[in-house]
Amino acid sequence: VINPNSDPVMSGVIRDEPERVKRPDTEVEVVNATGAPIAIQSALDEARCTPGTLEHVRSAKERGMDAVVIACFSDPALAAARESTTVPVVGIQESALHLAARLGEKVAILSTGSGTGPGRLGEVLRGRLGHQFASCRRLGLSVSDTVRDRDLVMQRLVETGRRAMEEDGAEVFVLGCAGLGDLAPRLSDALGTPVIDPNAAALKTAEALADLRLTHASPTTHAAPRREPVATGS
Amino acid sequence: VINPNSDPVMSGVIRDEPERVKRPDTEVEVVNATGAPIAIQSALDEARCTPGTLEHVRSAKERGMDAVVIACFSDPALAAARESTTVPVVGIQESALHLAARLGEKVAILSTGSGTGPGRLGEVLRGRLGHQFASCRRLGLSVSDTVRDRDLVMQRLVETGRRAMEEDGAEVFVLGCAGLGDLAPRLSDALGTPVIDPNAAALKTAEALADLRLTHASPTTHAAPRREPVATGS
Amino acid sequence: VINPNSDPVMSGVIRDEPERVKRPDTEVEVVNATGAPIAIQSALDEARCTPGTLEHVRSAKERGMDAVVIACFSDPALAAARESTTVPVVGIQESALHLAARLGEKVAILSTGSGTGPGRLGEVLRGRLGHQFASCRRLGLSVSDTVRDRDLVMQRLVETGRRAMEEDGAEVFVLGCAGLGDLAPRLSDALGTPVIDPNAAALKTAEALADLRLTHASPTTHAAPRREPVATGS
Amino acid sequence: VINPNSDPVMSGVIRDEPERVKRPDTEVEVVNATGAPIAIQSALDEARCTPGTLEHVRSAKERGMDAVVIACFSDPALAAARESTTVPVVGIQESALHLAARLGEKVAILSTGSGTGPGRLGEVLRGRLGHQFASCRRLGLSVSDTVRDRDLVMQRLVETGRRAMEEDGAEVFVLGCAGLGDLAPRLSDALGTPVIDPNAAALKTAEALADLRLTHASPTTHAAPRREPVATGS
Amino acid sequence: VINPNSDPVMSGVIRDEPERVKRPDTEVEVVNATGAPIAIQSALDEARCTPGTLEHVRSAKERGMDAVVIACFSDPALAAARESTTVPVVGIQESALHLAARLGEKVAILSTGSGTGPGRLGEVLRGRLGHQFASCRRLGLSVSDTVRDRDLVMQRLVETGRRAMEEDGAEVFVLGCAGLGDLAPRLSDALGTPVIDPNAAALKTAEALADLRLTHASPTTHAAPRREPVATGS
Amino acid sequence: VINPNSDPVMSGVIRDEPERVKRPDTEVEVVNATGAPIAIQSALDEARCTPGTLEHVRSAKERGMDAVVIACFSDPALAAARESTTVPVVGIQESALHLAARLGEKVAILSTGSGTGPGRLGEVLRGRLGHQFASCRRLGLSVSDTVRDRDLVMQRLVETGRRAMEEDGAEVFVLGCAGLGDLAPRLSDALGTPVIDPNAAALKTAEALADLRLTHASPTTHAAPRREPVATGS
Repeated sequence: VINPNSDPVMSGVIRDEPERVKRPDTEVEVVNATGAPIAIQSALDEARCTPGTLEHVRSAKERGMDAVVIACFSDPALAAARESTTVPVVGIQESALHLAARLGEKVAILSTGSGTGPGRLGEVLRGRLGHQFASCRRLGLSVSDTVRDRDLVMQRLVETGRRAMEEDGAEVFVLGCAGLGDLAPRLSDALGTPVIDPNAAALKTAEALADLRLTHASPTTHAAPRREPVATGS
Repeated sequence: VINPNSDPVMSGVIRDEPERVKRPDTEVEVVNATGAPIAIQSALDEARCTPGTLEHVRSAKERGMDAVVIACFSDPALAAARESTTVPVVGIQESALHLAARLGEKVAILSTGSGTGPGRLGEVLRGRLGHQFASCRRLGLSVSDTVRDRDLVMQRLVETGRRAMEEDGAEVFVLGCAGLGDLAPRLSDALGTPVIDPNAAALKTAEALADLRLTHASPTTHAAPRREPVATGS
Repeated sequence: VINPNSDPVMSGVIRDEPERVKRPDTEVEVVNATGAPIAIQSALDEARCTPGTLEHVRSAKERGMDAVVIACFSDPALAAARESTTVPVVGIQESALHLAARLGEKVAILSTGSGTGPGRLGEVLRGRLGHQFASCRRLGLSVSDTVRDRDLVMQRLVETGRRAMEEDGAEVFVLGCAGLGDLAPRLSDALGTPVIDPNAAALKTAEALADLRLTHASPTTHAAPRREPVATGS
Repeated sequence: VINPNSDPVMSGVIRDEPERVKRPDTEVEVVNATGAPIAIQSALDEARCTPGTLEHVRSAKERGMDAVVIACFSDPALAAARESTTVPVVGIQESALHLAARLGEKVAILSTGSGTGPGRLGEVLRGRLGHQFASCRRLGLSVSDTVRDRDLVMQRLVETGRRAMEEDGAEVFVLGCAGLGDLAPRLSDALGTPVIDPNAAALKTAEALADLRLTHASPTTHAAPRREPVATGS
Repeated sequence: VINPNSDPVMSGVIRDEPERVKRPDTEVEVVNATGAPIAIQSALDEARCTPGTLEHVRSAKERGMDAVVIACFSDPALAAARESTTVPVVGIQESALHLAARLGEKVAILSTGSGTGPGRLGEVLRGRLGHQFASCRRLGLSVSDTVRDRDLVMQRLVETGRRAMEEDGAEVFVLGCAGLGDLAPRLSDALGTPVIDPNAAALKTAEALADLRLTHASPTTHAAPRREPVATGS
Repeated sequence: VINPNSDPVMSGVIRDEPERVKRPDTEVEVVNATGAPIAIQSALDEARCTPGTLEHVRSAKERGMDAVVIACFSDPALAAARESTTVPVVGIQESALHLAARLGEKVAILSTGSGTGPGRLGEVLRGRLGHQFASCRRLGLSVSDTVRDRDLVMQRLVETGRRAMEEDGAEVFVLGCAGLGDLAPRLSDALGTPVIDPNAAALKTAEALADLRLTHASPTTHAAPRREPVATGS
């Protein structure tokens, strides 16, 4: 599990959450990407966390890893990571969305941040979920609030989730931040409907791919030969 | 695992395949739906296998099942099954497609049957995979050929798969029939790209949902109250 | 005309409505599906009404019918019915939507039931109407209210329809329940815009298909040969 | 029925076809648009036939018409015609496509002209039929060939239709030219699958709208008030 | 620059705006279409302005024009114009939308007129911008208001624009009327985000096409041969 | 103009092409990104050229640039670049596609590289052009062939372009590689239809944005406040 953020609270959740949901015989190692920004909030932040993330990806095979998880909800560096190794690489957003799409007709994402309007994350999610996208709602909390007062976070999650059920027809929820994942079981009890922790969804995907000995298609399967300086797509 | 077909060869694969891929501590029971047709090839066949399938679904909870798999690639009776139990119900087609979509850009399905043209299955798959749909190609073999000569089946799978890679840009394959699933590892080696056995994908999803204590959203969450005879949608 | 519901009020409308709109030389027979639930509100209800509906469909030809109408707004058992006969089979939802799409840019559906949120019916309709879908609005009335007080129903239809015109840009309405159909002309006068009774739209389609001696494509045209146990799509 | 072409052969078909399929008590009058080009093959041709077509539309009400059909497969001037009268106006393309979409999963259009490639008509049809669009195939015949030798036309229709069934998965056909409509029944027998004459489909729609006393939504329902010089959309 | 409206205020803006934004060595001539309605608000208005517009298009080449702009936000007669000349023809709506789509994720259009609801213009714009469409909002002002009090217009633009940013997530604005174009720079300053004058966007496109010696594809490239009376698409 | 490749031939074209098409009063400076790979052929190559490209973007303002062009057909680092400066940043792919979409119904891209199948570039282009996408065809040439023999390149362009017109209905072409751009005028003459050099299209867009004093929307307009470590989208 590679953590491309450097915020200590989020890192704590990312470190503990996989232990909670893994199968007994699965071993999990969590590493931090060198040079990672505090949080990934923009295309620029994604560019910044990419070199450090790819470094860990490239060494995964020789360190005997059976699968790699990139633990940030924007799934940064995922395509480049898959070009860099034959070990399966899993994003937490894609894992959570693919699982959620099967547990109900309409999926809502609950995310931190105080942004108004649909925003860019919402657009990406709408594109991926298609007609199953219900909404992307923000909690209106900063990370420092999140740290200090988990009960306040839970209260906001419940309020925002209820509104998403009534106004957006949401039936399934995805927590849209690695740092919120541990609250999924409590929120699910409170709302009476499934809530997905993206860290857990990713870990289960990683376990399944390792069990089935499956990995992503090799880029050499589908691209032009890569050794000579062919100008494909440039 | 509920088998809604009654063909003996297909039933053999459906019985053996889960044992091969399950985690050691998972227990699998395979049952046959009463009144099932030999194969599910039409809307009429789906209607015929529905009562027997739902019977098994309804008794799953009291028999202590943690998850139910419907083992037919057309995912028959899936919506009605989810309305009939709180145990998670998993279809093998949806499991295979959601996994495949994450292992490469373009997904092709290889299916038995001698139908020409894109056909109805192809349309359904295109709708589910969107721009990631590469093609749905038939092997041109009957089930009796499939039974007698597994080497012939493998030869056809390799030929058809190679054409799908060259002509349709396929990067990942899904075997579009429960009865072909056991050939996935051999075909993956031959083609050099991932091949997904839908039985295995479904079993892994069932394990993950049981581990995470997740199930589908309850129909009472999102529908009108169901006790009084309200004419919603009728 | 096959009635797959067993509610007596709805059955009354389904029985009388075709007589009102048919051409003089058209003969209409209305039958009830054996074992039908009171109302069709779920995938499970659709599964329940299917055997009784298909029984009537299979006997339609020998009883000299020129066309069959399935009189429930969710168009249950339609695909299986078309596989069961060469007599044209018509659904009331598809008939109403195809007619509505030609009478204005934006189509709204008014339906009974008290469900809030977009709901599953809304999703299906959005998929069928595409950019012409305005909204699917519920009247917030139970069937028993509908029976007792037709003036109350009309008042709710007018209020809800006006809101759909102002807020959703609706230009054409479809009554989303077989049991509301008779109110279409009065509602059209009140709103000053077209309102479609799905029973009437279906009867006109049935008359047109009979006149033009057209029926649906045979499943043998497009599917794999059906006599041998080929595992197409299973 | 307004004929916006001036070619004599096509006019003959447009004149005779409605008589063949109408109900006994329907009266049909066929008129030619003044200034119409020989055939409608471009946006420029559509612009040319518009004034003459609209003239007939505007006088339809006072001449006691219950419905108007514009008998050209590109449905020219349809939107402007509906703004010009309260009598229902019906296009033959939209009538044929909406009927075809209900008789099978995949619809192909057979059209005259020798154009290669998908062409603009194909694009329009693909947009309207969505996933139900199979293909738009040209016969490779000029109108003069069409006139001289109807057997040659039929032979080409059968050949092209068979290819569309095998290669494009077509299940239902629409004849994509008013002047081909009379060959629909013979072609349907030869191909063993439904073939729709767009003139007939339009006449049946016109009859249904007249029977049900339905017409298109008034432009004043949905647009800004039109008397004052408001610059909406300009 | 062809002005297909005859309103004097709008004509003033259309006359002055190109001069403001053109390169020093570009020469601009503005002409009025004979028989143009005061404003283009309907399909009927578009039909009315088409003959006068095409007349100017046909003479553009011999009068030495390097490019033609049709200065009405509904881009009337554009397809027919391109069939009538080899000089590049540019619409102001398409120019504005293509430029706006590159300056931000979500584009909103601000338009005159008092229409409520999404309206037809909104639908067209949604179709063209796809997921980048934020909204189409009306100012609720008549053209006479627009003439008398430009400060009132600016005030409404600012209010409506702010709402579109907060509620619709708009990041870029297009002024949806040729007669509003001159207010773009002031509005951009007030809102702190890009605002596009469609007249200016079209002039820049015309300059670019002239510089690069590019024009639209000839209709003879892609259509059936046009001299003989082939019934393609008719 | 930032060149994110380091191949000398491609760099030559990128250096000369803007001079050929710019307005006399436009000044063009071409710079190379430090650490750029020879060609941009994968997500990994894009990650590699990003830091050097962003460095030039960040200094553009103080060096008095009015607009920046990133001269690689995959538009690498574009989103991050726009977050890094208020100077307008233009990609050559998006510039070429937006211009091409207005010159004909169907757009084809001709690209170097010997990849078979539709490939990833094709998918991206299909997503951007929607129904206007005709095809993405490869020339089957390496860059070294391209360097040695420009006549061979031209011959392949003409052959491939003719096939795209006949088989894919292409009406407009885009050269899908910065290093092919100079051949656009000759190819356009040979094919008799518009061919767009993406370098030229981007330069004209840059000129237009500078003339109109327009730039992209600021990220602070639409995102959550960025100073505090809010975990939006992470």
